[in-house]
Amino acid sequence: MKATHYEGNKTFTVIEKQIVEPAAGEVRIKVAYVGVCGTDVHIYHGMMDKRVNIPVTIGHEMSGVIDAVGADVTNYAVGDKVVVRPLDDRKVKASDKGFNHICEELKFIGIDSEGAMQQYWNVPTFTLHKLKETTDLKLAALIEPLSVATHDVRRSGLKKGETAVVLGGGPIGLLVAMVAKEVGAQVIISEVNPKRIEKAKALGFDAVSPIDVDLVEYVKGKTDNRRADVVFEVAGVQPALDIMCEVAGIRGRIVMVAIHGVKKEVDLFKFFWKELSLIGARVYEKVDYEKSIELITANELPFEDMITDVQPLSNIQQVFENIDNNPDGLKVLMDCQL
Amino acid sequence: MKATHYEGNKTFTVIEKQIVEPAAGEVRIKVAYVGVCGTDVHIYHGMMDKRVNIPVTIGHEMSGVIDAVGADVTNYAVGDKVVVRPLDDRKVKASDKGFNHICEELKFIGIDSEGAMQQYWNVPTFTLHKLKETTDLKLAALIEPLSVATHDVRRSGLKKGETAVVLGGGPIGLLVAMVAKEVGAQVIISEVNPKRIEKAKALGFDAVSPIDVDLVEYVKGKTDNRRADVVFEVAGVQPALDIMCEVAGIRGRIVMVAIHGVKKEVDLFKFFWKELSLIGARVYEKVDYEKSIELITANELPFEDMITDVQPLSNIQQVFENIDNNPDGLKVLMDCQL
Ligand SMILES: NC(=O)c1ccc[n+]([C@@H]2O[C@H](COP(=O)([O-])OP(=O)(O)OC[C@H]3O[C@@H](n4cnc5c(N)ncnc54)[C@H](O)[C@@H]3O)[C@@H](O)[C@H]2O)c1
Ligand SMILES: NC(=O)c1ccc[n+]([C@@H]2O[C@H](COP(=O)([O-])OP(=O)(O)OC[C@H]3O[C@@H](n4cnc5c(N)ncnc54)[C@H](O)[C@@H]3O)[C@@H](O)[C@H]2O)c1
Ligand SMILES: [Zn+2]
Ligand SMILES: [Zn+2]
Repeated sequence: MKATHYEGNKTFTVIEKQIVEPAAGEVRIKVAYVGVCGTDVHIYHGMMDKRVNIPVTIGHEMSGVIDAVGADVTNYAVGDKVVVRPLDDRKVKASDKGFNHICEELKFIGIDSEGAMQQYWNVPTFTLHKLKETTDLKLAALIEPLSVATHDVRRSGLKKGETAVVLGGGPIGLLVAMVAKEVGAQVIISEVNPKRIEKAKALGFDAVSPIDVDLVEYVKGKTDNRRADVVFEVAGVQPALDIMCEVAGIRGRIVMVAIHGVKKEVDLFKFFWKELSLIGARVYEKVDYEKSIELITANELPFEDMITDVQPLSNIQQVFENIDNNPDGLKVLMDCQL
Repeated sequence: MKATHYEGNKTFTVIEKQIVEPAAGEVRIKVAYVGVCGTDVHIYHGMMDKRVNIPVTIGHEMSGVIDAVGADVTNYAVGDKVVVRPLDDRKVKASDKGFNHICEELKFIGIDSEGAMQQYWNVPTFTLHKLKETTDLKLAALIEPLSVATHDVRRSGLKKGETAVVLGGGPIGLLVAMVAKEVGAQVIISEVNPKRIEKAKALGFDAVSPIDVDLVEYVKGKTDNRRADVVFEVAGVQPALDIMCEVAGIRGRIVMVAIHGVKKEVDLFKFFWKELSLIGARVYEKVDYEKSIELITANELPFEDMITDVQPLSNIQQVFENIDNNPDGLKVLMDCQL
């Protein structure tokens, strides 16, 4: 079988490997598609060389079909379409209070251990979610990032009729916007990249640039001065932190999706004054995967337009080089059988 | 009757004034006690000269007895013991979403309009809460700051058996700690002022200095490594903002009680990583006043020890000068009939 290795130094290799039988409690997946995540690009750029175990097979946004089952596996059978929820919470402790998905000793599969960018992948069954027979395997590779979005929206408590402002129209921001719209909220996307604004509009969204328009006035105009009920910070930059406190209305909820590596300035006075809430959100829980599987299987949202390229796995080096050259693309999938 | 005026320039005067009949929808209160709030001290220091209407009678932490009722007043009678919830929300708008206590055009009575530091005070009935016949009027002057605390604890969702860390053991922090303990939580106070640490201990609290002990390790030791379920930021300084994100455990809720006049640095990574929430809290709602009236009337918490001095209203200038000289005191009351 073919597998890929990140070797450090902006280099991926494609290697030949033995197909291994699944251990007890594991299944072997014939991997269909793997999406490239921002984190994978960080790894490629060498920014996580201290964390990953070079050489390593990365990849965590995947879909596939069960190819073999190990001993003691009763709930899954060969032929089942599945996705992996790449969270290894086996070291969970009482002090994690039952929040397994963010437990202190969580390992992220595909970063901290072997991932999906290979033809066959053996994983423990506790990571699996079964798809429907009708679920499209290409779209199913979006279930992992979509689950970030379903988790974020669930954390926000967003309700039908409320207004959500999404700061940042990258892949995660657009998926958050889709889920927010599906809830029945009015959605406004703020994005600075003109190509991504166009894309958001093409997807049917109300999208504006905070450089060209006064975002706060724009949102006030769309909400009878109520401003946003919910703000999703999915841009990860200081201007988004500044505007999130302005654009949120009284008792507004701000979901912190973006990852800020260093301390940043926040207008805490606004938190006091308007009784805002800031809600941290990280990855997803089982229920978020279930919601995403429903959405992907129903295929009523413009998921297909999120996939801007599909490439053979064996082109992996070129795929990552292309992403650097075309940062406006949204989601590149690798076909793991090619 | 006697009334006091803040005249600017760190000066209060005591003036003689006509007793006025209450207008329709108003009552006249014979003011019993008025507490001095940190905000009153700010006003005295001239820091709010742009907001207050000099010369002005300030004061918003009060208790008293109804002395006369205006036309159309049916729910209140002469002799009723009352406190005023000093929020004038008459300019509430639809965009305030029903959160009247923090509505955009809220006026704070005793700052933006005439307050309680006088012998008789006319107020509209919508500001009133009736006390029990048994409610002590001295303690009742604590109902306003206590309602800040009952509001903060309610906003936190603190439950019996959880652990709350209170950063800052000033008057508000101590009241928050009392209410948190009354809920059935384990309470740990972090305070840097040795006199206030002693006071907190005398009130029966577990109180430590984050300068002398590693607060995070201390809290871990008291919680089987779970850290705090709820953190109240009632200190208002950068070190408290730094430690709040450390001392909060997974899914910890941090209530922002302190007022931060300028943007401050916050470790947003921790919000993402542990799925923390930050919950802004400002003043109080009706239900918080009702809870405080119950607590003050029951008198089972060490409220009496919060009152560190009682002075005649006519000594107002000296009272404010003394507070500057003795910043360790907690709550000074003025007896408005002396
Ligand atoms: N919470 C989680 O579990 C989780 C999971 C995945 C990704 N993330 C984080 O979510 C964030 C978004 O991920 P992504 O893959 O979509 O990233 P991305 O970089 O592709 O998207 C960010 C977008 O924000 C836009 N932007 C920049 N400045 C802006 C501004 N001032 N106003 C509005 N938009 C602005 C950029 O043009 C870009 O399109 C990242 O910080 C990522 O690390 C978090
Ligand atoms: N949210 C509201 O509606 C509301 C209402 C009243 C007061 N407040 C605010 O609440 C805060 C507290 O009010 P207060 O009257 O008790 O003020 P205070 O200044 O008397 O109390 C603050 C306490 O924090 C302590 N402190 C300073 N640095 C510390 C640190 N690093 N760690 C721990 N403690 C530290 C100080 O020694 C002091 O005792 C203020 O910011 C005030 O403006 C808010
Ligand atoms: Zn990812
Ligand atoms: Zn006050």
